Amino acid sequence: MKLVVATNNPHKVKEIAAILRGQNYEILSLKDFSNAPVVAEDGDTFEENAAKKATTIARYTRLLTLADDSGLEVDALNGEPGVKSARFAGENATDEDRNRKLLNLLKDVPETKRSARFKCAMALSNPQGDTDVVLGVCEGIIAFEPKGDTGFGYDPIFIVPRYRKTFAELGPAIKNRISHRAIALQKIKKLLQY
Amino acid sequence: MKLVVATNNPHKVKEIAAILRGQNYEILSLKDFSNAPVVAEDGDTFEENAAKKATTIARYTRLLTLADDSGLEVDALNGEPGVKSARFAGENATDEDRNRKLLNLLKDVPETKRSARFKCAMALSNPQGDTDVVLGVCEGIIAFEPKGDTGFGYDPIFIVPRYRKTFAELGPAIKNRISHRAIALQKIKKLLQY
Repeated sequence: MKLVVATNNPHKVKEIAAILRGQNYEILSLKDFSNAPVVAEDGDTFEENAAKKATTIARYTRLLTLADDSGLEVDALNGEPGVKSARFAGENATDEDRNRKLLNLLKDVPETKRSARFKCAMALSNPQGDTDVVLGVCEGIIAFEPKGDTGFGYDPIFIVPRYRKTFAELGPAIKNRISHRAIALQKIKKLLQY
Repeated sequence: MKLVVATNNPHKVKEIAAILRGQNYEILSLKDFSNAPVVAEDGDTFEENAAKKATTIARYTRLLTLADDSGLEVDALNGEPGVKSARFAGENATDEDRNRKLLNLLKDVPETKRSARFKCAMALSNPQGDTDVVLGVCEGIIAFEPKGDTGFGYDPIFIVPRYRKTFAELGPAIKNRISHRAIALQKIKKLLQY
């Protein structure tokens, strides 16, 4: 069965395909639908953005569609960057720019107050617009400097306390088991039975 | 563990408690929180209304909360009554008033065009506002006259094709296995593992 992953981000397609391997889905992405509508991620929550993307793309492709919206909530910044995680340092900034900005904002914040969490909302929509939305959460601590070279986004500055390592140090095998996206996708896997 | 079912409708609490029996939850309802905020069900979709109710009540009660929003979509009425199912014949109307109004609107519609579906969105929120939303759908046909005396709402005029009987004729044992609410709740049961 075909399943459209509503993203252009090849990192996300790869992570999702890895976790759904063995589920017998032919995974497509927005790259396979060059004229697909662009969905503005202007909701107040990850769940809202994911649902909007999934329903829009499912209606357009007439196929079962999975969309995600994810980001980092830092307690010392009152939950920022949150739904603005991708645009935190402006539209054309790089992962490095965003990590540098975040570390800079937290430079005087001690370790005990650097708690944060990655959240990933995933929405599954059919062409009729019926939608399930689930949330995966992974708790952590913001590092004082970037470490590790796997993953993407905020991975080099997000420490998982249980391992005392950043996502970027842990590598894909462990990350794909414990991450916010992994947890959300495990929930989606359960729902795909229905 | 305590689980608040965010409804005042005793029929819904009973159905939900029956399906979650054996899951070791102490089920509370809004009757146990007499000052809980009233949440306006003014969203465009069942999912939106369920999520809004669950997050509001979870924050208020500081407990894991399950909320549902459900209704009937009739194809010959372009999906109406939909999210307005409970108010379809005005605020103070009875189930009988709503069923009579619906049958009247469909009085010249032949059986082949009386397709409809019950939908139930269920949202599960924790006190931090993290929310999963799932949808259960049950396809059917609108009857020409009410039949059966179990259940509530539109049950007497909703025929399940596989049984050739209305929900109100089928009774709770079968309804709690195949209904929109049962399907949504089975999904929720899976998500409660996380």
